[in-house]
Amino acid sequence: MSSEAEASPPEQPKVSKKAAKKEEAKLEKLRRRQEASSAVAGAAPDEEDPLAGNYGEVPLPELQSKEEVREPYTAIGALAEEMKDETVVVRGRAQTIRAVGKKMAFVVVREKGFTVQCVVTEKEGLVSRQMVKFVASLNRESIVDVHGSLTVPSSPIKGATQQVEIQVSKIYCVNKALPTLPINLEDAARSEAEIEKALQAGEQLVRVNQDTRLNFRVLDIRTPANQGIFRIQSQVGNIFRQFLLSEDFIEIHTPKLIAGSSEGGSAVFKLDYKGRPACLAQSPQLHKQMAICGDFGRVFEIGPVFRAEDSFTHRHLCEFTGLDVEMEIKKHYSEVMDIVDQLFVKMFDSLNASCKKELEAVGRQYPFEPLKVIIR
Amino acid sequence: MSSEAEASPPEQPKVSKKAAKKEEAKLEKLRRRQEASSAVAGAAPDEEDPLAGNYGEVPLPELQSKEEVREPYTAIGALAEEMKDETVVVRGRAQTIRAVGKKMAFVVVREKGFTVQCVVTEKEGLVSRQMVKFVASLNRESIVDVHGSLTVPSSPIKGATQQVEIQVSKIYCVNKALPTLPINLEDAARSEAEIEKALQAGEQLVRVNQDTRLNFRVLDIRTPANQGIFRIQSQVGNIFRQFLLSEDFIEIHTPKLIAGSSEGGSAVFKLDYKGRPACLAQSPQLHKQMAICGDFGRVFEIGPVFRAEDSFTHRHLCEFTGLDVEMEIKKHYSEVMDIVDQLFVKMFDSLNASCKKELEAVGRQYPFEPLKVIIR
Repeated sequence: MSSEAEASPPEQPKVSKKAAKKEEAKLEKLRRRQEASSAVAGAAPDEEDPLAGNYGEVPLPELQSKEEVREPYTAIGALAEEMKDETVVVRGRAQTIRAVGKKMAFVVVREKGFTVQCVVTEKEGLVSRQMVKFVASLNRESIVDVHGSLTVPSSPIKGATQQVEIQVSKIYCVNKALPTLPINLEDAARSEAEIEKALQAGEQLVRVNQDTRLNFRVLDIRTPANQGIFRIQSQVGNIFRQFLLSEDFIEIHTPKLIAGSSEGGSAVFKLDYKGRPACLAQSPQLHKQMAICGDFGRVFEIGPVFRAEDSFTHRHLCEFTGLDVEMEIKKHYSEVMDIVDQLFVKMFDSLNASCKKELEAVGRQYPFEPLKVIIR
Repeated sequence: MSSEAEASPPEQPKVSKKAAKKEEAKLEKLRRRQEASSAVAGAAPDEEDPLAGNYGEVPLPELQSKEEVREPYTAIGALAEEMKDETVVVRGRAQTIRAVGKKMAFVVVREKGFTVQCVVTEKEGLVSRQMVKFVASLNRESIVDVHGSLTVPSSPIKGATQQVEIQVSKIYCVNKALPTLPINLEDAARSEAEIEKALQAGEQLVRVNQDTRLNFRVLDIRTPANQGIFRIQSQVGNIFRQFLLSEDFIEIHTPKLIAGSSEGGSAVFKLDYKGRPACLAQSPQLHKQMAICGDFGRVFEIGPVFRAEDSFTHRHLCEFTGLDVEMEIKKHYSEVMDIVDQLFVKMFDSLNASCKKELEAVGRQYPFEPLKVIIR
């Protein structure tokens, strides 16, 4: 479940004492700033507001499964122009907040990579000025519940993926983020090309470095490109698996803790297995061949493999997920070639069909050639 | 690909020197016996036989992808009574061989757990007496190519899964097994109940112990029960995955090599990661929670987890495949309960439907209660 764990990065690498102290001081400063800001802006809903029930922060006890309520949430990605005038409830992160005077505020709410623009306008008996103030004071990346009706603006919306707006009637903050996060999502989502272009125009944009991304991984994986990469990865495994299952392969899970190295002897991780030497499998080689000798005919595995090579480059991984296939040949090795051939055509075609949005999202930050199979 | 690796077990655990010597002597004896027997029985097809082309051992060079031939093999599991009088080619292991005088022999051929009875009868111009002799001298578990036409016998066949017989016109040995294997498949496939029953009737049947099974794993996994277990396991993963994908979950692969223990501190495998201490993940806990904080909403993983507990019982595994789910809750924990509930109903129903034969095969050797969901 989402929590406010963002301030304490969950995967802090070992750092020197000095660096640790510096980091601590930074976090302390952040904490103090946050307290100060919440004392001013994020104040409790104004007691004198008769519409106070339409907005505010949801206290923790109310979030603790006290009664079985099922709010009919709509996924932000599902909001479409055909739903005009419908009343919806959405939950997502307040990605950007912009106040226009004291009577109006815009919040772009994001869920799983999709965004929708929410409009809060003062309206008698429905939206108070305090409510607009509450919305304007929301911290970015806070989780909000938004109730409202859908409208379709006359001109296309640039700052959000969905081409509808929510005219907000109620808005609650379910989980409040820190006022200042170590990474701004729009900085993390920026492409190198964009940074270069701005530089040439004399403007310096923030570039988020790899170490910062890794130190605050939970924030970095919220970018559209990273959301896309994970979804595409899931889909690659799924297509690979479904194709092979349809070709009569069986999925197996081979041991990763083995008594000796699986191929070659050099780059293997060694460990102590209850007093005996053991290795981490560099591949499922031996065991998938055993499966073939054991009459399974065709097997595959998707799982981690471990390589202890001393290549400290950004193109080398000591642990990665292998997609591994083994099959018996009846007459000719072309039987394997046929499977591999069909597999890649299937994979590329399916990805282009089912992950169109995700491929586009990745391509915006990291441009790449389209996935195409050229048959000569 | 299948090979004659059966004599040298690929996964020999460390044993004492004395035991190793004993084992070596045993294998040497086996080897000698094999050589002697192949000199007598498995002799090359009789040169004087004008029908010699219809049977014999396929020499290795002929199996080496020299030309692109695709024999139209039929899967043994697909042979059915409707195919009566059709000519088929099947490939499988000669499970049992039985000669009836000099003019006739029966071979039960097995492929992926299915078996078919093949009949070789002397017939002028088609099947010579030498061919019957060749068939009778085949070693069990050898891989054979059988050509013939299908007949449907008047009484049901007991010794094979398919209710048709192949009237053999050609038979070739593609890969010859050792004359004496360390495990007999019918011994390995026997249930405890069967052994007990025979004992009470005064007959002692061979019981294959766990250590022998593990030392000759490639033979043991050929039993119907083990074939079933692997196929059911593959199917369990597949149903789990397809159900969750349909409920908008994403499949992730989390790191197995991590800097600290993932839950508790005691039972963790430690290793050296290029001079730094590292652990094997006891669960994907931390990383799947990071995925939720990273806005994926719903994630799952199927992969190995490592527990270094000192429980040396046959019910404990230091490495197993975990099916792991994590999801955000919108309003009430019953949302998780609903997913788990539907998942198990789906799993049991799908297994009963798609793995009927496999469940039966496992049940014959290891009886178990049917998979049923009782809703009260």
